[in-house]
Amino acid sequence: MLDYKLLQALATVVECDGFERAGDRLGLSQSAVSQRIKALEIRLGQPVLIRHPALHPTPAGQRLLNHYQQVQLLERDLRSTLPTLGEASPRLRIALNADSLSTWWADVVGDFCQSEGLLLDLVIEDQDVGLKRLRDGEVAACLCASDQPIAGARCVPLGHMVYHPFATPAYIARHFPEGPTAEAFGSAPAIVYGPHDQLQHRFLQGCGYHGGFPYHLCPSSQGFVRLASAGMGYGMMPMMQVETLVAEGRLASIAPERALFVPLYWHFWRHSGAVLERLTGVLGEVSLR
Amino acid sequence: MLDYKLLQALATVVECDGFERAGDRLGLSQSAVSQRIKALEIRLGQPVLIRHPALHPTPAGQRLLNHYQQVQLLERDLRSTLPTLGEASPRLRIALNADSLSTWWADVVGDFCQSEGLLLDLVIEDQDVGLKRLRDGEVAACLCASDQPIAGARCVPLGHMVYHPFATPAYIARHFPEGPTAEAFGSAPAIVYGPHDQLQHRFLQGCGYHGGFPYHLCPSSQGFVRLASAGMGYGMMPMMQVETLVAEGRLASIAPERALFVPLYWHFWRHSGAVLERLTGVLGEVSLR
Repeated sequence: MLDYKLLQALATVVECDGFERAGDRLGLSQSAVSQRIKALEIRLGQPVLIRHPALHPTPAGQRLLNHYQQVQLLERDLRSTLPTLGEASPRLRIALNADSLSTWWADVVGDFCQSEGLLLDLVIEDQDVGLKRLRDGEVAACLCASDQPIAGARCVPLGHMVYHPFATPAYIARHFPEGPTAEAFGSAPAIVYGPHDQLQHRFLQGCGYHGGFPYHLCPSSQGFVRLASAGMGYGMMPMMQVETLVAEGRLASIAPERALFVPLYWHFWRHSGAVLERLTGVLGEVSLR
Repeated sequence: MLDYKLLQALATVVECDGFERAGDRLGLSQSAVSQRIKALEIRLGQPVLIRHPALHPTPAGQRLLNHYQQVQLLERDLRSTLPTLGEASPRLRIALNADSLSTWWADVVGDFCQSEGLLLDLVIEDQDVGLKRLRDGEVAACLCASDQPIAGARCVPLGHMVYHPFATPAYIARHFPEGPTAEAFGSAPAIVYGPHDQLQHRFLQGCGYHGGFPYHLCPSSQGFVRLASAGMGYGMMPMMQVETLVAEGRLASIAPERALFVPLYWHFWRHSGAVLERLTGVLGEVSLR
């Protein structure tokens, strides 16, 4: 049998991003935490943590964390049938896209989390990184646009989000007076989420434009809306995030017929216990549009 | 004289987070980009990039990037006095806190960016990491809560943001029926931004509570508001972000007399050129409350 105190130390160091903070959380000295990590590494015969340049688990450490998370979820199920075991509330670690978190996510899962007393550890990742973290056992589930199957995991489609290239009417009049032309795309500042953001490129390709374009980089869903609303650029935003602003005439699409549909899939480990199954049931009732 | 093509390759690889994407941006093959990075490393006699586990510059690479950014800003000034040099629009890389980006930032700098044709590369970081990135030359400026001076940089105070522990009235009635008591804090789920988030701890300490508490982890400013609005927990949010929800009675403070004031400071490299000076002038007119 594994010594779960050691796994808990590892999980806490990674979650707190530091030995001292992990010690505070566990009520242990920093050196006691270090000793537990060392004991785990001796038992395993290899390192579980990389210290530099940033603290993160090795592949072996990640497998241990994944196992630890699954055991916690199973313990949770056990506690619900044996309430006298006492309280424990493991956080469920979920990778999801920023736009879901900024829009529908909490409305859909809020009541479920409250009634189950479930705490979430949300991680914002694009789909490639999110699925990698699921494969590596760093998260129990991943909400993303990819239906690429992961061995050992299930994949449930949740519908899709609709994106439009929104900007202020003043911005559109100034930068797109003749609509979405190649000339306008080459000079009108866009807003892009980050170097991995493919929506802007898909949109421009859909318009038949393949040249360069100026852009702001803004890795925040709400920051996107703020920059666009301040007239700084146009960007691909989910209709459900800006419905009110569009209804009030404060944002409009620069190319109304060029909506992009982004599907969303819920990936989660099979055999991770009943909570995750029930949460999947709640999400399965969503029908995004 | 340095070969700026090599520096541009380095900057583009880091910004695009990959050699292939950098090649696409620069109109070069992936191997041409690799050759430029290698040429830079031979010239320097040491590596400029670390490839694993994630692509990032070495300390020497960071100093080169800082220099490259400053040269770009100086070129920008030059171009404004010699317009026939032609167009170039370097992105200004700025680290800032998520809550500023979700609230006032774009409204304050939007007109300036438009009239100057200035593009931004925004990076969300908490204050410690943001200041480190400024010191390392990865960003030209940093907006954060720390007034810790950085050698070679100026620091301008911008006022402060006011935070309250907000939740829905139904959540407050359920979890804090007798106000902010120790018993309630020990069992009411909070919402915390991440392991480095100190606001929740400052708030609880201010209330004289030093015990453990359950919490969701949610690294998104808007996600915070969504989770709280769905009744999942209470969290420290800037008044300016939720003013409307508070006015409509959809969010309220669990401890109205326990506001926290978070000061904001603008740190930027001296001698980075006139654009940054003028942007600082615009920010200096802000008076956050």
